[in-house]
Amino acid sequence: MTLKIYNTLTRKKENFKPVTKNELKIYVCGVTVYDDVHIGHALSYIYYDILINYFKYFHNYDIFYVRNITDVGHLTEDDLEEDKIEKRAKERKYHHPMELVQKYTRNMWDAFDKLKLTRPNIEPLASAHIIDMQAWIKEMLNNGFAYEVNGNVYYDISKFKDYGVFSKKKIEELEKDTRFTNDPDKKHSSDFALWIKANDNHILKWNSPWSVGYPGWHLECSTMGCKYLGEYFDIHGGGIEHVFPHHQNEIAQNFGYFQHKVVNYWVHTSMLMVEGKKMGKSLGNFITIKDFLKDNSAENLRYLVTTGHYRKPQNYTKKAVEDAENTIKN
Amino acid sequence: MTLKIYNTLTRKKENFKPVTKNELKIYVCGVTVYDDVHIGHALSYIYYDILINYFKYFHNYDIFYVRNITDVGHLTEDDLEEDKIEKRAKERKYHHPMELVQKYTRNMWDAFDKLKLTRPNIEPLASAHIIDMQAWIKEMLNNGFAYEVNGNVYYDISKFKDYGVFSKKKIEELEKDTRFTNDPDKKHSSDFALWIKANDNHILKWNSPWSVGYPGWHLECSTMGCKYLGEYFDIHGGGIEHVFPHHQNEIAQNFGYFQHKVVNYWVHTSMLMVEGKKMGKSLGNFITIKDFLKDNSAENLRYLVTTGHYRKPQNYTKKAVEDAENTIKN
Repeated sequence: MTLKIYNTLTRKKENFKPVTKNELKIYVCGVTVYDDVHIGHALSYIYYDILINYFKYFHNYDIFYVRNITDVGHLTEDDLEEDKIEKRAKERKYHHPMELVQKYTRNMWDAFDKLKLTRPNIEPLASAHIIDMQAWIKEMLNNGFAYEVNGNVYYDISKFKDYGVFSKKKIEELEKDTRFTNDPDKKHSSDFALWIKANDNHILKWNSPWSVGYPGWHLECSTMGCKYLGEYFDIHGGGIEHVFPHHQNEIAQNFGYFQHKVVNYWVHTSMLMVEGKKMGKSLGNFITIKDFLKDNSAENLRYLVTTGHYRKPQNYTKKAVEDAENTIKN
Repeated sequence: MTLKIYNTLTRKKENFKPVTKNELKIYVCGVTVYDDVHIGHALSYIYYDILINYFKYFHNYDIFYVRNITDVGHLTEDDLEEDKIEKRAKERKYHHPMELVQKYTRNMWDAFDKLKLTRPNIEPLASAHIIDMQAWIKEMLNNGFAYEVNGNVYYDISKFKDYGVFSKKKIEELEKDTRFTNDPDKKHSSDFALWIKANDNHILKWNSPWSVGYPGWHLECSTMGCKYLGEYFDIHGGGIEHVFPHHQNEIAQNFGYFQHKVVNYWVHTSMLMVEGKKMGKSLGNFITIKDFLKDNSAENLRYLVTTGHYRKPQNYTKKAVEDAENTIKN
């Protein structure tokens, strides 16, 4: 039987052809461990769990599943401020940011185990791959895809002709996108940071040939994906919110390093809505997996997820949870 | 009330005086995650758990507990062969050594949770601190405590006058110790490796100023202990088997880096015997925590441990387990 898979890159269902016969090499963007995982994470990782188990049990594939843990480099919303983990650790007066990482990594694993999610083969930590990321930056500099200014290193998007394949925008249009900072050191406003010089107060920082600093967030997934899965692998997954710029930038980095495409199929799960609204802490409708499981079963959430379609927004409602509970009982 | 603690360094009970008032900064040598944790680990970590809870609940101390996870650099027995983790991963045909690390880290945490051990504040991974270890090596080279030969870097024990404080041996006597390799590149046979050049088949290796290689095992604990707990901390713990050479070498490295003492109190737990014999895989009397808990309760093991003294060998017997079960029931 031919396996078909929807590829965000081509916006088409394609026949699945693995890099290695009977093996699924899959990388899924993981959690930034600065807070408890929520039912939005559950939705996405349950879908990937189903996907993996489908390959494993229906098609007898060997699974090589890598899902990263982001413990450094994920900056606060506007990409100009602090590291998310440092900020939270300071607010809560932890001994060290890594204590926060430890707490929420363990909480995440507790929650995911309770949801009966398949444990990935490897869950690499960003902070454990700083040297690997530096090696990638050196190679991208050598290959002419990156440039250094004042201790920061940027990716030059004008050097990669396919930049914008995900956003369906040309570089000239991207230049007008106000989400990007007007950093005077950048050649183009949507050039993105590969290495960032740390200010004196920054805790999570490392020596490098360019400055004492830390890696740009997008770099970790390129580096760790290829380190473990190789320079060609099958599926790269994530949430729909990762398509642009995170995954676009990964594609650019992969090309800047290898001068070829790395990932064959890009898969994205959609957003979870709560009672018809976007879930958010500020909106007061944020539900952690731990809280959900106080009143409901893991089966309930798994069932709920399967009633939707992974590429369509799923609406989480009190009524749907009750209905699911009744269905499971029956 | 004065707190007293036995210090392996002085072989005396000493009054405990913390570096920071009402805070216990403690580092305990953790597990090399290449196999399931066994009841010998349980014995040691239950003792440290009791120690920590004693400071916390009886003396109202804030606890800052760091316990490392060794995922790289721990070589097979004779210190000349392969990395323990790489060797096992190859034997079992894992996709990558880090897959073995992932499996046994998760298994360890499952087992330790079942034993109700206090989770450490931070469990740093050796592989996540390669840059930090390289910075330590550079500093020790600058300070004249280390030397480089053919891509390897060694610690020069003749530069540290207190070397041998744990073993109570002079350098001339140590020279005759046959456990040390007669590497012709070394100035003294008990000089130990800080950085090791990797051969082509080695998987876990990194770029460095000296060679593509990997850190010596002893270095990780110095580096990670001081990174999180600071350049002065209270207690360093481990098993009695760590006293020499592992902890001796840590003391040497700490001095080579800071030129002062770092750890105030060294605490060591003793060995666990099984039916009067040393526990070992080859002896067929190796009991994993997972296996123990199939037939017995966590309370049983915790109770058993408290019936002994942490500095005397504890004999684990079938009868003792049954007696403990009866006592707990009563």
